[in-house]
Order: sequence, then C-alpha cells, then structure tokens
Amino acid sequence: MKTLTLIGIGPGGPEYLTLQAIEAMRRVDVFFMLEKEGRGKEELLEIRRRIMDRYLEPGRYRVVTASSPPRSTAEGYRQGVAAWHAEKRALFVEFFERELAEGQCGAFLIWGDPALYDQTVSLISAIDAAAPDRYALEVIPGITAVQALTAQHRIPLNRVGEAINITTGRQMAQCDPSGVNNAFVMLDGEETFQRFTGQNMDIYWGAYLGTDDELLIAGDLDAVLGELLQTRRRARERKGWIMDTYLLSRRLRDD
Amino acid sequence: MKTLTLIGIGPGGPEYLTLQAIEAMRRVDVFFMLEKEGRGKEELLEIRRRIMDRYLEPGRYRVVTASSPPRSTAEGYRQGVAAWHAEKRALFVEFFERELAEGQCGAFLIWGDPALYDQTVSLISAIDAAAPDRYALEVIPGITAVQALTAQHRIPLNRVGEAINITTGRQMAQCDPSGVNNAFVMLDGEETFQRFTGQNMDIYWGAYLGTDDELLIAGDLDAVLGELLQTRRRARERKGWIMDTYLLSRRLRDD
Ligand SMILES: C[S@@+](CC[C@H](N)C(=O)[O-])C[C@H]1O[C@@H](n2cnc3c(N)ncnc32)[C@H](O)[C@@H]1O
Ligand SMILES: C[S@@+](CC[C@H](N)C(=O)[O-])C[C@H]1O[C@@H](n2cnc3c(N)ncnc32)[C@H](O)[C@@H]1O
Repeated sequence: MKTLTLIGIGPGGPEYLTLQAIEAMRRVDVFFMLEKEGRGKEELLEIRRRIMDRYLEPGRYRVVTASSPPRSTAEGYRQGVAAWHAEKRALFVEFFERELAEGQCGAFLIWGDPALYDQTVSLISAIDAAAPDRYALEVIPGITAVQALTAQHRIPLNRVGEAINITTGRQMAQCDPSGVNNAFVMLDGEETFQRFTGQNMDIYWGAYLGTDDELLIAGDLDAVLGELLQTRRRARERKGWIMDTYLLSRRLRDD
Repeated sequence: MKTLTLIGIGPGGPEYLTLQAIEAMRRVDVFFMLEKEGRGKEELLEIRRRIMDRYLEPGRYRVVTASSPPRSTAEGYRQGVAAWHAEKRALFVEFFERELAEGQCGAFLIWGDPALYDQTVSLISAIDAAAPDRYALEVIPGITAVQALTAQHRIPLNRVGEAINITTGRQMAQCDPSGVNNAFVMLDGEETFQRFTGQNMDIYWGAYLGTDDELLIAGDLDAVLGELLQTRRRARERKGWIMDTYLLSRRLRDD
C-alpha cells in the first residue's frame, strides 16, 4: 500500500495549520506540488515552502513540482472539465507510481480545506476506487477562506435559524438577485457583487485573507461599492493577481 | 480596554486546534465556560479541560464556570430567542466586569468554529457595539463538524460547480424533500433524514466526530436507514446524549 494524504493548510499563514495537519506533514515522504500556471503561482508555492520550512526537518522529505494541466477550452463546460480531470488523474497515477515506493506516503498541501471547491479529493477518490488495494487515502481538514472571512469581520456564518449558502461567482452571475438572502461567494473573478446593488444588501469582503496583504471592506453594498471596486482593482494591479471572497447578506426588517 | 477572544477549538480532539488557537489561548487570563445544562455537559467541559491541560501552563489562567441560562419556552420562537439572548448578554457583561481587570483577556473556547450555529459571536458583537471603547473583540476560526464529516468520509463539500448548503434539522423538517439536492444538516435531534427516503439520496453521517466515540455511516439512504437508526439510537442510549451531522446528496444522472 501507498498512503495518499490531502492536507488542508488554511488560507495563508502557517499559524492556520492544525496540529493534526502538522503531524500528518511529518509522516510524508513526498510532497506533490501542482500549481496552476499564471500569476500568483510563485507566491502560492512560496507560502507552501514556508510552511514546510517552519514545521519539517530538512532532508526528511522530497518535493515533486509540476504544472497543473491547463483546462481545455475547446469543448463545452462539462466535457471540458471531464477531459481535464481525466488528464489530471493520469498525471497523478504516474506520479504515485514513479515517485512513491511501497509503504511510502505522498501528500498534497491543499489551500484552505480539501473539501471546498478543490477537485483533488474527487480525483484521488476516483484513483482509489479504480485500484482499491493499492492506496490508502487520508484527508486532513483545514481552515477555509470563508472562515478566515467571518473571523476577520467578526460575523457569524448564519443569522439565527438561517441556512448557509456557499456558492461561486458563476452561479451568482446567473441567479435572480432578489432570490438571494445570504451567500458566501468564492471563485468570482468578475466582481459579480455589482449585480446586487439596490437590493438592501450588506457586503463583507476580504482579499488575501490570512496573509500580510489582507484587505477587508464591510458595509452597505450600495455605499461601499466604489471603494470596493477601487481597492480590488488597485490590489490586483499591484500584485498581478487577487484571491478574494465575500458574503452578501440582505438586511432583514428587524436587523 | 479588555480583550474578548472567541477561540474555535474544532470538533473534539486537541489535534484539531490550529497554532493560532493555541497561541491565542496562551494570552488568556480568564476562560469563561458556559455549557448548556443537560446530558453531555460534563463530557463537553472535560474535552475543553483536556485541551487546556495539554497546551497551557497550570496556574497561568483562571476558569470561570457557569450554567448557560435555559431557553424560555413560554414565548414564540423568535421572541424566546431574543429574550434568551438578552439574558445571556447581561450575564456576559457581568462576567467581564467582575472577572477581568483592565488590560486582561477573557476567552470562550467555542466548539468547532465560532461562526457556525453558535450565538456567541453575535452576543459579544452586540456587547461591543453598546460599549465600543471598552472591549477589543477577536475571533479565531476552528475546524467545524462539517469539515470533520467530509474529511472522515473523504468527500468534497460540493460537486463540480455546485453550491453548498448547510442547514438545520428544523429547516429540513419543513422543506419540500424533492427540492433538496444537497444539504449538510446540523442540530437535528429528530432524525429528520427519514423524510428523504425514496428520493435517490445518499447519506454521509457522522456522530461524535473527532472524538474516541466517532461513528460513521455512508450509503444509499434507503439501504442504510435501518442500520443508521439502530446505530444512532444505541449510541444515544449508551452515552446518554448524541451530537451528529450528515450530508444528504441526491444522486445525479451522470454520477
Ligand atoms: C479553488 S477555491 C479553493 C478554496 C479553498 N479550498 C478553501 O477552503 O478556502 C479558491 C477560491 O477561494 C477563495 N480564497 C481562497 N483563499 C483565499 C484567501 N486567502 N483570501 C480570500 N479568498 C480566498 C477565493 O474566492 C478563491 O477564488
Ligand atoms: C450548536 S452547533 C455548533 C457547531 C459548531 N460551532 C461547529 O463549528 O461545528 C452543534 C451541532 O453541530 C454538530 N456537531 C458539533 N460537533 C459535532 C461532532 N463532533 N460530531 C458530529 N456533529 C457535531 C451537531 O449537528 C450539533 O447539533
């Protein structure tokens, strides 16, 4: 058997790691680093290197770095994703066969929590299902960007009795704004919050959460929109990339 | 100024704490422990004591324990909650005034993440808003029961592109089952998952996650329902209380 461990590292700083994650890291023989090509790649790899330097003894582990295969744009959305996932699975299996000896442990350091908008869990599960006695699979939870957002703004995920909704920029671009009461939005490269003005909405926004570049803005969406757009665009221009997330929350009568 | 820190401790074992949480604990002068009366109270307090013993030097902090005021059942749901919250806020202010000297730090060790189905953030925020220069408020995120569930079952929170829905037993008891595609359910003392049979649903269930008593069941809801009810009822009888959470997930055509 070879062990495959997906370790949630939280949203940035090494202080977000759990002790469970640190202990899991210390059992790892090979760390696999796949980062999407593009801006921010170097910085995101650097954050992982800093975490390894801080918690691991040098020389006790290897790092194998590769570029994540680019997503095909030729086909439709679902087919494109399926083809891309098949390609990634093949790459992973090649890695596990070539880089891990019998009994060894390979790991991925996953941004935030491995369960939240990250396909690695599904990809590794599919590999595991196809060869059930070959791999042991382990998942270590991590603090998500959403939790960094609520902690920094000191807000709850839910108001009393309310359900919690976490969604994507893509979904928010398509929905009827009047049907949204509260939504945490991730993966929004398009500033989709602009669709929700004039709707009695508050926004709680954060970028580069848990890092030295952290930015926070909160308030009535209509009132803070200008400041938000300016801050977001300047930051993206200055750093060359941005990662941000936000809560849109409709003001209720008795708030 | 007095500092009030809400520290997420994760769903059970001390290994779920982040380094940020441990560092925050080391700055605390007084820990406030309020646990609901009822079964499980002693065990939940004991888990917190074990965490403090593991990470703190004895004699460097004080613990103030009190019973959480019981929720009034006389009034309607919303009024009942409002009255109960007012009572809790008054109790908290009394604590902070009596137990904390100027410049000291008081803390609550919050199960899971302080933002998820826990009123302490809102209560403390309201206290802070009423006396803005008296308190500094700090929130430290923690691993939620939902993340322990997905990690132990090695499943993602979302399928590709899908939104994530976290909700309560109360909401699940009232909704139309055919309208639910995926829902993480917390605070369900009524085995509400029984409403969702015959609906092409899978369930991923976990109880006492992150503790030595952890229980896991997964599969087609129709097929595992009997085993699930039996396991759940036996565990609750044996221990005298239960905390459990689950994902209901509709099988899609191409799953
Ligand atoms: C592919 S998802 C991965 C989420 C990650 N698994 C987690 O648990 O947070 C990436 C999205 O997460 C959000 N995100 C991740 N890290 C962030 C951070 N440090 N600050 C703000 N948003 C972040 C952004 O919305 C980004 O588009
Ligand atoms: C008042 S809520 C608090 C949730 C907590 N703040 C968190 O982040 O997980 C309590 C509910 O969380 C779930 N829960 C908390 N800890 C759990 C555990 N260790 N195992 C299973 N469910 C748990 C149960 O659904 C329970 O009814």
